[in-house]
Order: sequence, then structure tokens, then C-alpha cells
Amino acid sequence: MELRDLQLNIEKYLNKKVKLDGWVKKIRSQKKFGFIEFNDGTYFQGIQIVFDDNLENFEEISKLSIYSSISVEGTLVKSEGKGQSFEIKVDNISVYNKADISNPLQNKRHGMEFLRTIAHLRPRTNTFNAVFRVRSLLAHAIHKFFMERNFVYVQTPIFTSTDAEGAGEMFQVTTLDLNNLPRNEENIIDYREDFFAKPSYLTVTGQLHVEAFASAFHNTYTFGPTFRAEESYTARHAAEFWMIEPEIAFANLETNMDIAESMIKYIIKYVMDNAPLEMEFFNTWIEKGIIDKLNNILNNDFGRVTYTEAIDILKNSDAEFTIPVEWGMDLKTEHERYLAENVFKKPVFVTDYPKDIKAFYMKLNEDGKTVRAMDLLAPGIGEIVGGSQREEDYDKLVNIMREKELNIDDYSWYLDLRKFGSFPHSGYGLGFERMLMYITGISNIRDVLAFPRTAKSLEY
Amino acid sequence: MELRDLQLNIEKYLNKKVKLDGWVKKIRSQKKFGFIEFNDGTYFQGIQIVFDDNLENFEEISKLSIYSSISVEGTLVKSEGKGQSFEIKVDNISVYNKADISNPLQNKRHGMEFLRTIAHLRPRTNTFNAVFRVRSLLAHAIHKFFMERNFVYVQTPIFTSTDAEGAGEMFQVTTLDLNNLPRNEENIIDYREDFFAKPSYLTVTGQLHVEAFASAFHNTYTFGPTFRAEESYTARHAAEFWMIEPEIAFANLETNMDIAESMIKYIIKYVMDNAPLEMEFFNTWIEKGIIDKLNNILNNDFGRVTYTEAIDILKNSDAEFTIPVEWGMDLKTEHERYLAENVFKKPVFVTDYPKDIKAFYMKLNEDGKTVRAMDLLAPGIGEIVGGSQREEDYDKLVNIMREKELNIDDYSWYLDLRKFGSFPHSGYGLGFERMLMYITGISNIRDVLAFPRTAKSLEY
Repeated sequence: MELRDLQLNIEKYLNKKVKLDGWVKKIRSQKKFGFIEFNDGTYFQGIQIVFDDNLENFEEISKLSIYSSISVEGTLVKSEGKGQSFEIKVDNISVYNKADISNPLQNKRHGMEFLRTIAHLRPRTNTFNAVFRVRSLLAHAIHKFFMERNFVYVQTPIFTSTDAEGAGEMFQVTTLDLNNLPRNEENIIDYREDFFAKPSYLTVTGQLHVEAFASAFHNTYTFGPTFRAEESYTARHAAEFWMIEPEIAFANLETNMDIAESMIKYIIKYVMDNAPLEMEFFNTWIEKGIIDKLNNILNNDFGRVTYTEAIDILKNSDAEFTIPVEWGMDLKTEHERYLAENVFKKPVFVTDYPKDIKAFYMKLNEDGKTVRAMDLLAPGIGEIVGGSQREEDYDKLVNIMREKELNIDDYSWYLDLRKFGSFPHSGYGLGFERMLMYITGISNIRDVLAFPRTAKSLEY
Repeated sequence: MELRDLQLNIEKYLNKKVKLDGWVKKIRSQKKFGFIEFNDGTYFQGIQIVFDDNLENFEEISKLSIYSSISVEGTLVKSEGKGQSFEIKVDNISVYNKADISNPLQNKRHGMEFLRTIAHLRPRTNTFNAVFRVRSLLAHAIHKFFMERNFVYVQTPIFTSTDAEGAGEMFQVTTLDLNNLPRNEENIIDYREDFFAKPSYLTVTGQLHVEAFASAFHNTYTFGPTFRAEESYTARHAAEFWMIEPEIAFANLETNMDIAESMIKYIIKYVMDNAPLEMEFFNTWIEKGIIDKLNNILNNDFGRVTYTEAIDILKNSDAEFTIPVEWGMDLKTEHERYLAENVFKKPVFVTDYPKDIKAFYMKLNEDGKTVRAMDLLAPGIGEIVGGSQREEDYDKLVNIMREKELNIDDYSWYLDLRKFGSFPHSGYGLGFERMLMYITGISNIRDVLAFPRTAKSLEY
């Protein structure tokens, strides 16, 4: 049986025989008896195992190292000790494997940086066990939210030949032998011999591709890994991260914001309902007050303000910013956090940004200088969602692409969507790890990724 | 409102005013009236729109090209025509966008090969609409199956420095300028300047990484894109495809097969229950009898046979194979299909393969020459699942790695899992696209991938 079943149905199993396979989390033993804090990984809260010298292998069990794997048979009983309600009085313990004493994971608090050096073992600790259980639930909540609303999940491609965000931070992919590159007569690399017969890269967004599917299914989303070759050593950047990108036909920017707001509330509530022990753990050990913070989000409408209004608010504030505020600038994290934390005191959508600081595919407003963009800024983290209504007019889209010096030919298929039944549509991107950091209180992106990949770091 | 809501609640909306945004799928018009086959993408079955010359813009509407996008207001009524039960008598139609007449998608049957050349438009056709709706439902069914069983979904990394399958078919990833590679004094590429400061590749499997999480969560799975740089031009191979890989602690090979069998039945049933119109379409137009085929799977236990028994069966059969059958060989598709189609007439697990033809991580049997591997062979497709119990013994694992000439240092973290609380465990891999092909009857993998990436082909 599994510990989760036992913990959730404790009255049913009381005074019954139970059998569990799992690991020793802690052990203390005396001359004639001992206690094991046991867990099999299926539930956040372990259970105490009581053993005594009636066991044939009492000596062996008394000396078990932590993280040894064992099979336990015994009876679930009410505990007489303090702090435990129930425990298992064992009849038999057999050992699968004694953990070697060189185990770097010991029964003490390890620092987060040290734990990053043993990413293959850290999910066994309480902190990472809670983080990765919540990560899994959060991913499921996202799928559940969209599926309940009849969205179609599209796995957009990872390989691409174009840079859809225009930031130039892409990884190149090749099967050519770098030590022996094929070259043509002009000594230029001959990509005809490469796998795709042309230069190829890893995607930075699935948006353009999912737009094609919105024209067929109305409500669509993609959820998969994306890549940035940004040599950034901050706590918020990784080379490989997951992104959620819905795209909704016949939706304007307001509907887009409504869906983003509903989604965020839905996924937060799902995690709080389905991981109460883990959330309690974060509230106690990682970010005090995080449960209140999240309840505050559930119980309030998000703010909505235009970029132009936000600039005025920032200019008229008493705050001193490192970077001065001017209309036309891209808001920095200090400005974003000030708006969310000091002005609105809750998540706030900022809309209608200057076109020059936004991507080519955003719908131009009638003023000719702003676009129907929206960023959601959250207290404590800054931007967490970025989206827009898309430019559906073929001519306007081609104009802005020329202005931004994009190669029109690379996007002919994307432009086709504006030629053959173009339609108003909107969508947004949510950084999955940012959301997870927000829900868990974990402050470094390396600690919410199973095996984080960052500049100069590719271990495991 | 959305068409799906209307179609599923038709009595509720009967004789009521309705408003829909969507596309013209077909149109035929006469002097004073016309019909539009309309769909907004939310439901497989469209609805007929009836308009007449009371419309202000009757002329314009009469001449609409297919896939033009429109907004329709009218009343849902019982149809007097043949073949339609309900239709919308319109009060008003406004046009978002007239599809340019150069639209390559016309109102006729297009060949699958032609449709591959317009992958951005093909989801609008019935066939691909059905395929990609089912793809989305199938992905959700997989998550739902594992979540209901308390599995933890792990997003294993895409970037890797090792070749876990040892097949050498990996894509290299780099941020170096290929035209100007940094080299050391010995003229060897200096990877210190590359993004990860070492050669890096795209993963071929998440299994090794998810094993680390099985040691913390007991029940785990990964579901994400994997990559093979295999220059294969078959109907079954793509460079980028999705894979599901569960890993279960304290599970032996029998439990592993039980879970695989339950999962396959669960996801087939989920799709049949949630996409009845799409399945009916496949049954009529793509693979006659597919619904019976799938019901046959739901209603029968899968076969189970050892590799050694399977070889005997094949040797003693009357079949003539292109490649002769010998113990020790890897079964080819012809053998796999013969077993599934002619011998068992249902899916069959073949277990305990020779160690020399299987991966290093599989548990050695007591005979010293076979491993606890299992492949699931399905009628009509061949291998669809491959899995094994894993070798949990440190020394045996190191031995086989030496035998297979793997670099032990690259796997030190993986070996740690055998040092610090090693445990019996098993898992398998299911190719998502293969499963989708099996459920839809689609015979080419390019037609179940949104934007397929294959050798020499990287469009869109």
C-alpha cells in the first residue's frame, strides 16, 4: 500500500496490518527500541515507525543510515508519544539498500546553494519535495483550466528557423561536425548538409504557431519548454523554462485580461486545495504570510491601468527610482513592483504600451503610437504575464514588420492567417516558473526547475 | 456564444436569438437566398446558416469566399431541409475578413501530401481538425490518468551533456559563431566559450532524470518533447516528438506492465468518450473498423510472452520473413506485427529480451543473458511501448556500463541513486505520436504533429 492512502484514511486502517515500502528519513535508537521517521514519497507527511528488540534484525535496523530503503510490516496504532497521532508498531522490517554513509544529504538543514549541487537528491528534502509536488499540481491545474473551457492544447514545435521575438537570443541546433564544417567555394558554411538543410534554432515562443490553430479551434493554448540563450546570472533567468501561451479567436484585450485573471485565480486555488500541507510548509519556512498573500489575490479584482496613466502615477509619486521615468521607456522591475506593491497593493494589468518597445504582432491603437498590449505585474515579483491583442490587418502587419526590419518571407505562412479569414484575436504568455516562484515563495528560479540549465551550468 | 455550447444544448436555444463568430466552410447561393456551412472551431459539427435577400448586404454575403470570417446573428430553428436538424435563420451577418481567393484551401478533397505543404492552414480541414482535437484530448487523458493515481509530473530537462540511449543520434546545441569558432592552441574547439562551457545536446529521453524523482515521490512521470537526429524518411520517424515516461518505485516488471495496460485502456476510452464525432469521422474516412479495433483493446487482456517463447513461436510459424528469426536478434516490425496481428490478435507484451540488444539500465535476469525488459506490440503498428525494470544494484550497473563502454563519470549522479537508498523500480516510454496514430488511423507521423520536423524539412 501507499502512505498517502494510509494518511488520508487513517481511521480505516487503525489497528490493522499495513505494509509499506519507502525510506528512512530520520532514525533514533536506544538499547532495546527505536523510532524511524518513514516516508514512501506519496505524501508530504511521513509516519513514525516504532521497533524494538523483538525484531530478528534489531541490530541492523538500529544502525540504518538515513535514506536507506526498507520494507515495513506492522500495525497502525494510536501513538502514546507526543507530537505523533499515529504510528506503526512493526512486526518486520527488511532492508532493500543501506544508504552509503558518504550520502551528502544528511539529517540537518542544508543551504539552498549546496542543494543545487545535488539536484538529483534534493527532491528528497522537505523543501524540494513540496516545490516539485506543487509544480506538478500547478501544471495539471493549467491543463484542467483550459480543458474545462474546451481549449485545444497544441504542442508547438521546438525547432524553428525564425526568431519570433526578435531578441536574437537563440540557441543554434546542428548535426554538422563542428571540427569539420562543410564549406562552399566562398568558404561559407554549407548548411545543405545540416539536418534541416538550413540554420536551425530552438524556439523562444510558440505564439505564432498557436495562432494558426486558433483559426481552426477558436480556443487554443500551448504549454511547453522555451529557450533563451541569455547570459544572465540573475535569480529569475534560466536558459530552459516552460511557458503557457493561450490564443483566443474573437477575443479583444479585455477578454484576454479576464481569462488571464480567471486562470491565475483558478490555478492558485487548485494548488491551495490540493497541497495544503505543502502550502503550510511554505508559509512557515519559506515565505511567512504567503497564504494570506494568495488569498488576497483570490479575493480581489486585479487592477487595470494604461501605460500612460501608470507613467503619470510613477512620475507623481514620491518614490526615488534608479532609472528615471519617462513616457516611452520600458518599465523596469523597480517601477513594476512599485505599481503592484505600493500603488495597487495587488496584481495590476498595465495596458496600451508604446509600440516601439513591444513585439511586431501587437495590434496598433488608433493613436498610432501605442499597441493593445498588456502586462500583468504582481507584488513581489513584477511582470508575470505578457500579452496582447494581435494585429489582424494584413497591411498594417506588413508595415510594422518592415519598420522593425523583419524578413517578410520568413513569415509568409503567418501572414497567410491575415489573408484567409483573418479574425480579431488575443493571447498571452505566462512564465510557468515565475508563477511557481510566486506560489511557493521560492526566490531563485534554479530551485523550481528539476535540473536547472543556466549559463555555464549543464550538470546531470 | 460558442457553437459547442449551442450544439450540446440545442433544445435550450431552440427559437432563441443566437450570435456566433466564425468561418464560412461552404457556401451556395441563389438569386434570393443562400446557405452557409458555418463553424467557429469549438465543435466538430458545424451548423447551417440560412440567409436571404432581406439582408442589407445580401450581395456581399452571397459572394463570400470560403474561410471568410463572419459574425452571425439570428434565430435557431428546426430545419425544413434534408440532412440538417437545425439551422440558424439570420437577421444579420457582418464580415470580419474576406478570405483572399488565392487561398490554397478550397472546398474539395485535398491530398495529405499537399496539406503538409500548408501545415498552418490544414487544421481547418475536417481530417486535421479531428486529429488535433484528439491529440489535445489524448494529452489530457495521460495527465488525468497519472494525476488520479497521485503521480508527480516532472519536466525533465531538454538540454543534456550525455547520450542516455547510446544511439549517438543527438542534435548539438551551441551559441558559438560557427563561422568563427574559438579554438585552443591545438586547434581544438574551445567549448569554454559556449553557452554551457561544454558540448551540449538535446535529450533523447527523460528517463534517467525522472528516476531521481521516483526516489523522492514514488510515482512519477515525464511528458515532453524528445529529439532524434536520425536521417530517416519513413512514415514513423520525426526529429522532434513527444514521449511519456512514467517511473514507479518498488514496482517490478509485472506491475509495470499492469500500469501500461491500464493507461492505454484509460486513454483510449477517454478519447472515445470525449470525441465521439471525431472517432466516427476516422471510422468512416480514415480507417474503417477503427472503433471496433479500439473496443477490442478495451475488452481484452493484453497478451504476455517472453522473448524466448516469441522467437520459438516465430520460428515454428509458416510465415516467411524478410529477415530470418534467430535468438539474440532485435525483432523487426514484420516480426512484431506478426506476433500481434496473427498470433495474439491483440496487443502483446514481449518480455525478457537479450541484454545485448537493450539499454544499459535494464535489470539483469538470473540467467545472466536476458534483462527484465518489455515491449508492447500492437496490431497494425508494432512496438508502441518499451520499458523495463531497472538495475538497482550498483556493482551490476557499473559492470554493464563498462561492458557497453559508457563513461562512468558522466553518470555519477545516476549511480548515486543506487548508492543512497537504492530501490527496485520500473518504468516505460510511450511514443505519444505512435499512440495517436493508432487511435486515429492516421498512417504518417507528419500528419499528427502540428508542424512536423523531419530530415531536411523545417518550414513554418
